[in-house]
Amino acid sequence: MNSQVTSESSGTEQLRARISWARIAEPQDTIARGLIARLGFEEALARVRADQSPGVGARFAARLRQLDFDRELAMAAKASAQIVVPGDVDWPSGVDDLEHPPWVLWVKGKASLAHVSRRSVAIVGARASTHYGDREAASIAAGLSDQGFAVVSGAAYGIDAAAHRGALAAGGLTVAFLACGVDRAYPARHSDLLEQIGEQGGVVSEVPPGSPPLRTRFLARNRLIAAASSGTVLVEAGLRSGARSTVSVAVALNRPVGALPGPVTSMVSAGCHEEIRAGRAQLITDAAEAADLCGDIGKDMAAYKSGPVRGHDHLDALEMRVWECLRPKGRPGLGVEEISALAGLSALETVSALGHLQTGHSVVRQGHLWLRA
Amino acid sequence: MNSQVTSESSGTEQLRARISWARIAEPQDTIARGLIARLGFEEALARVRADQSPGVGARFAARLRQLDFDRELAMAAKASAQIVVPGDVDWPSGVDDLEHPPWVLWVKGKASLAHVSRRSVAIVGARASTHYGDREAASIAAGLSDQGFAVVSGAAYGIDAAAHRGALAAGGLTVAFLACGVDRAYPARHSDLLEQIGEQGGVVSEVPPGSPPLRTRFLARNRLIAAASSGTVLVEAGLRSGARSTVSVAVALNRPVGALPGPVTSMVSAGCHEEIRAGRAQLITDAAEAADLCGDIGKDMAAYKSGPVRGHDHLDALEMRVWECLRPKGRPGLGVEEISALAGLSALETVSALGHLQTGHSVVRQGHLWLRA
Repeated sequence: MNSQVTSESSGTEQLRARISWARIAEPQDTIARGLIARLGFEEALARVRADQSPGVGARFAARLRQLDFDRELAMAAKASAQIVVPGDVDWPSGVDDLEHPPWVLWVKGKASLAHVSRRSVAIVGARASTHYGDREAASIAAGLSDQGFAVVSGAAYGIDAAAHRGALAAGGLTVAFLACGVDRAYPARHSDLLEQIGEQGGVVSEVPPGSPPLRTRFLARNRLIAAASSGTVLVEAGLRSGARSTVSVAVALNRPVGALPGPVTSMVSAGCHEEIRAGRAQLITDAAEAADLCGDIGKDMAAYKSGPVRGHDHLDALEMRVWECLRPKGRPGLGVEEISALAGLSALETVSALGHLQTGHSVVRQGHLWLRA
Repeated sequence: MNSQVTSESSGTEQLRARISWARIAEPQDTIARGLIARLGFEEALARVRADQSPGVGARFAARLRQLDFDRELAMAAKASAQIVVPGDVDWPSGVDDLEHPPWVLWVKGKASLAHVSRRSVAIVGARASTHYGDREAASIAAGLSDQGFAVVSGAAYGIDAAAHRGALAAGGLTVAFLACGVDRAYPARHSDLLEQIGEQGGVVSEVPPGSPPLRTRFLARNRLIAAASSGTVLVEAGLRSGARSTVSVAVALNRPVGALPGPVTSMVSAGCHEEIRAGRAQLITDAAEAADLCGDIGKDMAAYKSGPVRGHDHLDALEMRVWECLRPKGRPGLGVEEISALAGLSALETVSALGHLQTGHSVVRQGHLWLRA
C-alpha cells in the first residue's frame, strides 16, 4: 500500500513538510509549534533550512542534516504504515481538539482512527499494576468491546497490556498509541502483543518510524490517547503515575473520565482515589458504568445497582412491626394483645396486619396464637 | 445520680409525658407524632388516655395499660442512665435538625452528647465486614480520636464494633446509639464492648430501658447516629445495607458524608461505591480526609497527597530531553552533535543543558563524550 494514497486531500508539498517536521522536531517543541502556527508547515520548514542562527534554526540543524524524504517514505512502507494527515477520511477528529494536535500519524493496521475516535474508551493505568487491576482492566475492556467500543491504550506493561488483551480476547477493536515509531516494539517483550494489535486493530504514532521512546514522547503520546478516545478510564495509578497525565488531558478536553476504586491500602489505587476526590473522575466499577460514562446518552445507560430483593421487602411498615415481634416457628406463639403491646399498635391494626401476613404466608396461626411461618 | 436532675428546664409534667410517650409509642409512630405536634406532649397523652377509639387511642391502649411512671424512673436509675431532654445542657443539638427528633434520650456514661454533637464522626457500615473494612474503620476511628473527634456508631458487629474499638484503643471518646434500651446488651456478644463504651464514652437510646431491639428501631436509631454527629463515614456496605439509611439521613440534613472505597469485587464495598457515584458521599481514604470532610474548615484540612519526589523532578524540559538521550554509565558516551540530533535541540541548547546537568551531578563528561552519572 502506498503511504501517500491516504493523503490526497493535502498537497504533496504540505505532506512532505508535515513529515519533515515530525522528523526534525519533538511533538511538543514550542519553537517548532510557534513557527508552524505563524508560517504554516512549508514556509516554516523553508525558514529553518535557511536560518541556522542560534535563536531558531539551530535547534533543528542536526536533524535537518539527516533529513531524507525518500527514506521517510521507504521506512513507512517497510513498516506497513499508512501516513494519515488532517483531512484524510481516517484522521481521528478527536485530536483536533488538542492545543497541539499531531502533525501527522503513522498507522499500522486496519483500524480507521476516525471510527475509533467516535466510539472508544481509553483504558490506562499503572505499569506496576496488581492482579486485581489487570483483571478489572481486561474485564472492562472485554465488556466495552462487546458494546462496540474500541479500546485505546499505550501498550505498556500492566494496565495498558491487560486492556488491549481484554479487547483482543473479546474480538474487539483495540488501538495502541506508541511513544516510539510504529516499527519498534516497545516494550520489547510486547512485540507479540503489538503484532496482534496491529493485525486486529491499529498501532499508531506521531513520531516517525525508527524513533526511540523518550520520556517527553510518553507525555506527548498520552495526550493522543486521551484525545483520540470518547472517554478515559483510569484503572490503577500511583500518585505520580504518568497515566494521570492522560486524565489531565481528557479533563482539559471536557471528555468523560472514570476511575476504578481499589483498596485504600493499595498504592496503585491512590491515584484513582485522588482523581475521584478531586472531582476529575467519576467512580466506575465495571464495563457497564464505563459505557454509561463514555457512550451515548440513553443508549449506553447502566442499570441501577439495587442488590437482591429480600423476603420482607413487600411488607408495609405496620406489617413489619408485627412480624418483627413474632417468634420463629417452634417457639411458643403470641396472642393479639401481647403482639399489640410489643408492636405498639392497636388490636385492630395488629389483627389486620396479621391477616395480610397470613395471606402472604409470612405468619401461621396456631389456635389463638401467632408465629412466623 | 437522680435521673431527673438534668431536666430541670422542662417542667416535671412534660418530662413525665415525654417518657410516657417514649414507652407507649415507637419513635417513628406517625399517629403519635401527629398528636404531639398538634397538642403537645401532655395534652396528647391525656387524649390517648381518654380516647380508646380505634382511630387514635387504640394503638396505644395495650402499652398504656402497662405504663408505670415510678417504674420508669427506677429502671433508669438501675441502668445508671441519665434522662436527657431538649433544653438540658447535655442535649445533642444536632438531633433537633431531624424531622422527628427524639422525645427523650437515656444516656449511660460520662459523655456529654452536646459536646459530641459539635465535633464527631459517625463511622458506620456492614455487619458482615471484611478484615480490610474492620482494619480501616479502626484506623480511621483512632486517627479521628487523635484529632479530638468523638466517634459515634451503633455497636453492631463488623464496622460499628471496629470503629468503637479503634476509638477506645486511642483513648478517644466514643458513643453508641442502640436500637434497644441502654440496659440491654445487643448484640449479646458485645456486652463487654458496650460496658467499655459506657465507661469511656456513652451508650444512648431513645427507647426506654427494657425495650428489645426491633427492625424499625434500627432504622430509627440510624437517624440519631447521623443527626448527633458532625458527619458520617461509610466504611463498608452492601447495596442493601442498613448503614446506607444513616447516609440518607446525613444527606437529608446536609451533613458531610464520606465513603471508603474498596475492591470492586467486594460486595461490601458496592454500597460505598454507589454512594460515591450518586454524589451522596465524598470518597475518603483515611482519617485525615475524614477529618477534613467533617471538621472545621481550615483547622482540619488534609494535606494534599503528592507521592514521593523523584530524582528528575527538578530538571527543566530541555534538560530532561538531553538526559533521556544519554546512556547509563558503563556504556559508550555520546558527543554533543549526536545528542543534539537525538534530543532535537541546537548544539548551544544541548551544551547549556549538559552544563546544568553536570552541575547537578546528573551527568558526567568523559573527554568530549557525555554519560549519565
